[in-house]
Amino acid sequence: MTTRTQPNKFRRRQTSRRPARKTTNLAEKHDSQETNTLKIIPLGGQEEVGRNMTVFEYGKDIVILDMGIQFPEENMPGIDYIIPNTTYLQGKEKNIRAVIFSHGHLDHIGAAPILLKKLDYPLVIGRNLTVALIRKRLEDYEKNSVGKLRASLIKSAQDKIQLGNFKLSFFEVEHSIMDAVGIILQTPVGTIIHPGDWTMYKTPDGKEELSYKHLASLPGPKILMLESLGATDNRLIHTTETEMYANLEKLIREANGKVIIGTFSSQIKRIGHILEYARTIGKKVALDGFSMKANIEIAKELGYIKIDRSTMIPVNDINKYPENKVIVVCTGAQGEGNAVLSRVVASDHRFIKIRPHDTIIFSSSVIPGNERTIQRLKDNLYRQCDNVIHSDIMDVHTSGHCHAENIKEILRQIKPDYFLPVYANHFILKEAAKLALSIGMSKSNVFILDNGSVLEFSNQSGPKLHAKKIPTNYVFVDGLGVGDVGEVVLRDRQTLAEDGMFVIIAVIDRKTGKIQGSPDIISRGFVYLRESKDLLRATRRRVIDIIDRTAGSGGAVNWIYVKEEIRNKIGDFLYQQTERRPMVLPVVIEV
Amino acid sequence: MTTRTQPNKFRRRQTSRRPARKTTNLAEKHDSQETNTLKIIPLGGQEEVGRNMTVFEYGKDIVILDMGIQFPEENMPGIDYIIPNTTYLQGKEKNIRAVIFSHGHLDHIGAAPILLKKLDYPLVIGRNLTVALIRKRLEDYEKNSVGKLRASLIKSAQDKIQLGNFKLSFFEVEHSIMDAVGIILQTPVGTIIHPGDWTMYKTPDGKEELSYKHLASLPGPKILMLESLGATDNRLIHTTETEMYANLEKLIREANGKVIIGTFSSQIKRIGHILEYARTIGKKVALDGFSMKANIEIAKELGYIKIDRSTMIPVNDINKYPENKVIVVCTGAQGEGNAVLSRVVASDHRFIKIRPHDTIIFSSSVIPGNERTIQRLKDNLYRQCDNVIHSDIMDVHTSGHCHAENIKEILRQIKPDYFLPVYANHFILKEAAKLALSIGMSKSNVFILDNGSVLEFSNQSGPKLHAKKIPTNYVFVDGLGVGDVGEVVLRDRQTLAEDGMFVIIAVIDRKTGKIQGSPDIISRGFVYLRESKDLLRATRRRVIDIIDRTAGSGGAVNWIYVKEEIRNKIGDFLYQQTERRPMVLPVVIEV
Repeated sequence: MTTRTQPNKFRRRQTSRRPARKTTNLAEKHDSQETNTLKIIPLGGQEEVGRNMTVFEYGKDIVILDMGIQFPEENMPGIDYIIPNTTYLQGKEKNIRAVIFSHGHLDHIGAAPILLKKLDYPLVIGRNLTVALIRKRLEDYEKNSVGKLRASLIKSAQDKIQLGNFKLSFFEVEHSIMDAVGIILQTPVGTIIHPGDWTMYKTPDGKEELSYKHLASLPGPKILMLESLGATDNRLIHTTETEMYANLEKLIREANGKVIIGTFSSQIKRIGHILEYARTIGKKVALDGFSMKANIEIAKELGYIKIDRSTMIPVNDINKYPENKVIVVCTGAQGEGNAVLSRVVASDHRFIKIRPHDTIIFSSSVIPGNERTIQRLKDNLYRQCDNVIHSDIMDVHTSGHCHAENIKEILRQIKPDYFLPVYANHFILKEAAKLALSIGMSKSNVFILDNGSVLEFSNQSGPKLHAKKIPTNYVFVDGLGVGDVGEVVLRDRQTLAEDGMFVIIAVIDRKTGKIQGSPDIISRGFVYLRESKDLLRATRRRVIDIIDRTAGSGGAVNWIYVKEEIRNKIGDFLYQQTERRPMVLPVVIEV
Repeated sequence: MTTRTQPNKFRRRQTSRRPARKTTNLAEKHDSQETNTLKIIPLGGQEEVGRNMTVFEYGKDIVILDMGIQFPEENMPGIDYIIPNTTYLQGKEKNIRAVIFSHGHLDHIGAAPILLKKLDYPLVIGRNLTVALIRKRLEDYEKNSVGKLRASLIKSAQDKIQLGNFKLSFFEVEHSIMDAVGIILQTPVGTIIHPGDWTMYKTPDGKEELSYKHLASLPGPKILMLESLGATDNRLIHTTETEMYANLEKLIREANGKVIIGTFSSQIKRIGHILEYARTIGKKVALDGFSMKANIEIAKELGYIKIDRSTMIPVNDINKYPENKVIVVCTGAQGEGNAVLSRVVASDHRFIKIRPHDTIIFSSSVIPGNERTIQRLKDNLYRQCDNVIHSDIMDVHTSGHCHAENIKEILRQIKPDYFLPVYANHFILKEAAKLALSIGMSKSNVFILDNGSVLEFSNQSGPKLHAKKIPTNYVFVDGLGVGDVGEVVLRDRQTLAEDGMFVIIAVIDRKTGKIQGSPDIISRGFVYLRESKDLLRATRRRVIDIIDRTAGSGGAVNWIYVKEEIRNKIGDFLYQQTERRPMVLPVVIEV
């Protein structure tokens, strides 16, 4: 197989002129004359606008695109991931006609288990692989929850689905996972065109493989919401997928030792390609990484990748084959602590041992924020291996996203009336807007939204950006808790991380108001206690003084005041002695 | 002025053949026949080999190059910076002939106040600006400590200084700060050539401005220690300094509003250039940022930059001038929380307010690890300003470091016998080694050291890499503490950051062994306590059960065992309920 030919016949035939299929109405139709406006609301993530979720509302009909997760930022210790804030949808659950999923990456489907449940399991629409990955995610999150999923599979690009006032149809897009799909949402006041994540593949002679020109004839006004992550990527030359595969194949073919390829578990197409290439040259492939194996299993079951029985071997069998016949594809190229590559490099993997003549390939991009971790991982790999290949050395990865020229090209092809760049940080969206202006769009027809922005289209007048945003504050997932870690808990974690904590426990005689014995001090993350005995002694003395002064008179004591005094005075004392500000927590126990 | 013409006559005249100056012997000469070997030991920083400090030892003579700091990694909360570990030098203080400083950047001079003091203030050798910046750093760290500094200024590239068995001389290098200098250390067994940080400037017609060919004739074996940070930078086209300045000048000239330039406070040359250009076109410059103002003041006093009185204005005066006449140069382009640019963007600056028609320029590189913070800063700037310029948009910064082609060129010019790439992560050093091999060096003549590696040269045989490394574990500076925060404290901070802490205080009746009342619980950073009352109640019940079971029998109670039980059982219970692992700290108080 090649990963580009897919088992279903989704690829749009540009020459054939089939009649459109009969429109299926999967939801009750609501014609609401009184509220004939279309609202577009990007949700989720605070940085990349709309990447995780977008809400479309027309009258009493709501259609949602994607339910993804955002990974935590560096100042959010302990947080597992962040899900979109759906406060706006509370009480409107019955209006949700469907949730469409553009493709199966976690930033687009990861929040499905939590949010589908929260929104009473609305209808889910997606292509084959995407829905299979959602099913898996649901089952991993909560056993048997998949039974509650109501899913409608998109069978072909000609499918049309009526969702209340929304007429949903599709178009093919290219992305780094199979079954990515672009959506068209026709409403009485405008047609939304949204490719989701996309790129433009080129044929070896430099032409685009896919045309979007047919979208230009959709009924106006056409509102193009466009993933614009690569708007600041002005390089003239980009590695093509063909070149990237040629590089990978050469490395695999010529390797004298094992080949270890670190990539994202979501790179299903690429892994499929490696499996197929290995078969043709008689090498064996072992996959390692929980999510990677699960994803490939799903893709195999659906027939998206063919796996030759004699090619795929379990990772515990790799040492049964000659080294130069073995390829390991694994997770962990971002330096994630528990992932396979980190364990391999720490000599902590039972079967995969690195030898100097092995070839190690980083076939993935660097996620911003992971740079230093990846540098350390590379350091450790280079110490053990003479052939470590990454993007500085050779093009062994291509992005599944567009760049500046692609954005201009698709704008020229679709000729939208309105342009809404999305799926990137604000500063990149502003650069995308400049690209649109550079090819002749008018400034008044370009809108840069934030998460929570409400852009409203009507027949009466031009689009209107609401002055007020809907709530989008982060909803954190930490362990079993969804949304229970808020700003307060997070700020405490940051303070504890900076300078640790300092608990002072004073036992007070209820009758005399005097302290019994010496205060107990429990401190962590502040100073090395064994070497700070003088400091602790001086602190205890000060605590006793404060209590004597503020409470020692006996009678009714204001313990809140006493504790506040301890917190402030001891905090100041510790800062003066150390220039550190641990969290000081006084405890007073009356006996 | 132009920043390239410097007030002293350091620039080597390649045509003149002056007689070498009389050699000054600043230190007593130690001829030690019994130990006639040269040891090279990179110290400091765990990632970038030798960047912060290098030790050279011949018999009883020690010469040190630089004493810099490393900035903390993301898993080192609260740490201010890291200094080189000088355990190896303990007891050898009297052997230290001198500490030479290659240039005035913090990663090369930042640890001077602490380490010079620790090593009994050995002789310091450096050029004018470098020594002035060291003085400033000493004075900032400890009032009046500068009086203890013994410094010898390098007056010209022809200076020669005998330091015991080391004969020290110099050569000019190009870097992004004035007064950078390369050093030559001749010993009876080999000549070390070390440019420190360096780059290669080109003239407008593409030739290198500076030649290193004269170093080829130094007595062999020549050991080239080479900063190789850019070894993986294989781009064929690099922005020249001339182009970068032309871009900056155009932006400044054509700006309709204020120009705000964010750069490093150490970019003294660039700031000098901006000041001079502003004078020629009649604009005003305000500097903001404590360290930036201090650096420019020092450079001005030494005559390195001329400041026209009518050009420089205080930042609180900027609103007295027409907007299009004002340039602000400030710190904070890395998104540092307290720096000027962050305060400006948060509308927290008294005088600098951003207007949409202002021009904001990021004239600095992105330090790895700061990517996401800088993205957020850009987002916020783009929200307020229509003209934000950074390296994705235009070349408004050039690196002061070499790239792959420069490394090959300098190797060809100097023709070293031994090549020791340094000042970069291990993986980059390995790529630098490959560059050397690619132009014909022999593998056995290339050494990739780690921090703490000891490479020994003698007359008897080839260089020998010691099997054992000297100690290089991190010495953390946190507030007033130097080295008192160790692995334990840091691990506690990480744990506290992840899931917070949970202190359980039980008051026990000494006579009965029974708990008095209900245990107190103090928790921060774990869950939002007000919404977790059920969890706290259940936890208290469990604590009472554990104490009853393990201590309730009265008599001699093993409180250590009781506390251990509470820690484990309650830790497990909390994990089971929340999938979080706060630090559980049981306290038992007998009354």
